[in-house]
Amino acid sequence: MPPAEKAARRTAVDVTALLERGRTLATPVLRAAVDRLVSPMDTVAAYHFGWIDAQGNPTDGDGGKAVRPALAVLSAQVTGAAPEVGVPGAVAVELVHNFSLLHDDLMDGDEQRRHRDTVWKVHGPAQAILVGDALFALAGEVLLELGTVEAGRAARRLTTASRALIDGQAQDMSYEHRDRVSVEECLEMEGNKTGALLACASSIGAVLGGADARTADTLERYGHHLGLAFQAVDDLLGIWGDPEATGKQTWSDLRQRKKSLPVVAALAAGGPASEQLGEMLAADAKRQDFANFSEEEFAARAALIEEAGGREWTAGEARRQHTVAIEALNAVDMPEQVRDQFTALADFVVVRKR
Amino acid sequence: MPPAEKAARRTAVDVTALLERGRTLATPVLRAAVDRLVSPMDTVAAYHFGWIDAQGNPTDGDGGKAVRPALAVLSAQVTGAAPEVGVPGAVAVELVHNFSLLHDDLMDGDEQRRHRDTVWKVHGPAQAILVGDALFALAGEVLLELGTVEAGRAARRLTTASRALIDGQAQDMSYEHRDRVSVEECLEMEGNKTGALLACASSIGAVLGGADARTADTLERYGHHLGLAFQAVDDLLGIWGDPEATGKQTWSDLRQRKKSLPVVAALAAGGPASEQLGEMLAADAKRQDFANFSEEEFAARAALIEEAGGREWTAGEARRQHTVAIEALNAVDMPEQVRDQFTALADFVVVRKR
Repeated sequence: MPPAEKAARRTAVDVTALLERGRTLATPVLRAAVDRLVSPMDTVAAYHFGWIDAQGNPTDGDGGKAVRPALAVLSAQVTGAAPEVGVPGAVAVELVHNFSLLHDDLMDGDEQRRHRDTVWKVHGPAQAILVGDALFALAGEVLLELGTVEAGRAARRLTTASRALIDGQAQDMSYEHRDRVSVEECLEMEGNKTGALLACASSIGAVLGGADARTADTLERYGHHLGLAFQAVDDLLGIWGDPEATGKQTWSDLRQRKKSLPVVAALAAGGPASEQLGEMLAADAKRQDFANFSEEEFAARAALIEEAGGREWTAGEARRQHTVAIEALNAVDMPEQVRDQFTALADFVVVRKR
Repeated sequence: MPPAEKAARRTAVDVTALLERGRTLATPVLRAAVDRLVSPMDTVAAYHFGWIDAQGNPTDGDGGKAVRPALAVLSAQVTGAAPEVGVPGAVAVELVHNFSLLHDDLMDGDEQRRHRDTVWKVHGPAQAILVGDALFALAGEVLLELGTVEAGRAARRLTTASRALIDGQAQDMSYEHRDRVSVEECLEMEGNKTGALLACASSIGAVLGGADARTADTLERYGHHLGLAFQAVDDLLGIWGDPEATGKQTWSDLRQRKKSLPVVAALAAGGPASEQLGEMLAADAKRQDFANFSEEEFAARAALIEEAGGREWTAGEARRQHTVAIEALNAVDMPEQVRDQFTALADFVVVRKR
């Protein structure tokens, strides 16, 4: 197919409908799984997912972008199965993702997520730990109770992804205490923290649909690079994102002194702006009044990161990872419509504003 | 076989050797699994397991009683398989058990375990959360990487047990905020917190050895009641145990205001001592100086629990659960030597001093 025709087909995919389909298929099963938890864990989990407010009243929270469930149900169609076959996989991946959010928010001391107080702020640290554990256990249960050989394989891949997620959080926490982190270390951490679970989401429906190991591995490769693209965009939004859209504070990642891609790339770039940034961040690390920095002080740091090339490099990295992800798809036989939808989801990930 | 002969055979079992066998088979595989964790999680986990001290020097910690690994490798022999077949199950169960210890110690604020500072005291809350998560994920990995149908079944049972464990901790925490807890509620909580994982340990080797669902369910019943007997003994040791043997403070459970079996049984018994105890504990709940109570004040409460019959009832409950556990074994075909060993382990659990 000529490139122009390909591009036209990609644009014809309705990404909003694709995300909505994943959410619509997964949410009832996710809610039924959460309902199995004993009180008060069911309530705490419902608050975390945005289904109720802190007082217990129902809300119509949007529950995030829902890229993972969309990928999971789409991947079932690679094998010719119905999207529904991927639903237990979509739910299990969402449960693992939310287990990690509950624990990471507590470990990182993050007080806000999706414009709301985090679980540990509202219900206390013990509930954040316990409900996180419960969601992680539920993830295994949702898959393994299918009782099929395919479910066992899916559970194995999800366990591997979960371990990578935990490794990534360990690396992230240890990097916070270091002056310098290399670009390679940052990419490895992001591959673990974001790439592994998107890799699993992109293949789990296919695994449940009976795909062979090679097909599943290739879909994982797509998802892994999509995850790296996703995280590069997240890192850009973490500094230059619109707080109205992201639900985070301005200069959010700078306030938290995150060694995110734009920062490490700027520090690695060399040149006057890079050196000035390095000296400034080293001095910041010793200051007690960091939390009270003015908007202008953070803006000055963001400007230096940009001047040293950190913003441009990260935007380029998102595009490079996007390209590798799309190329991986070529190694798998699948209906052309499914391929177009995978491609459209990858396009969406790199242009999103939140 | 006449009862006298049966008893003689049971006494002939060397329980110490049986526990040692489980520990010897499981420990190298457990260590290899923990070695997969990225730094510093490997070190934190090694500290938790008692393999190194807080400074990182190797120690010869005993790693607990090791009842669970002994049960897991023994259960493989029910199917005629070698004890080694149960090892991945033993390791997975130990990983889940230790995941729950890491998180429970943090949630409960417990500063000591096995005569040593708990992980959150030494390495901080974030490491306790993260390493707990990692051990939980490793448990699934160790089973599922076997790649067999049996391993999938074993993982499913372990997931169910893990969820029960988490439910039990949720119940335990919610009971702490209540004035009264019924004996039934306490037994349900202890069935979740202790029974479920001992049930899984008692059957997981058999599941890996290819046992049918009925055999596995019956072994689980043995383990569940053994767990309830185990917990009744733990509850007795938590009040009247010798600190030298248990590694806990004197009157440990009273200091923590635990609604353990002797307490709830004493409160439910009625009569003058029961009523006096109820009034005293209700008054204690309002006092700010509770942590500074003298030995004599705790001893007075322990004496009232005993006078109201809480100690005797709990000791009786341990014996009743022990009997039900042994009876469950009769419903399963297994080599007589294996049955004797299961019985001897049950006997050990109810007479132990730590």
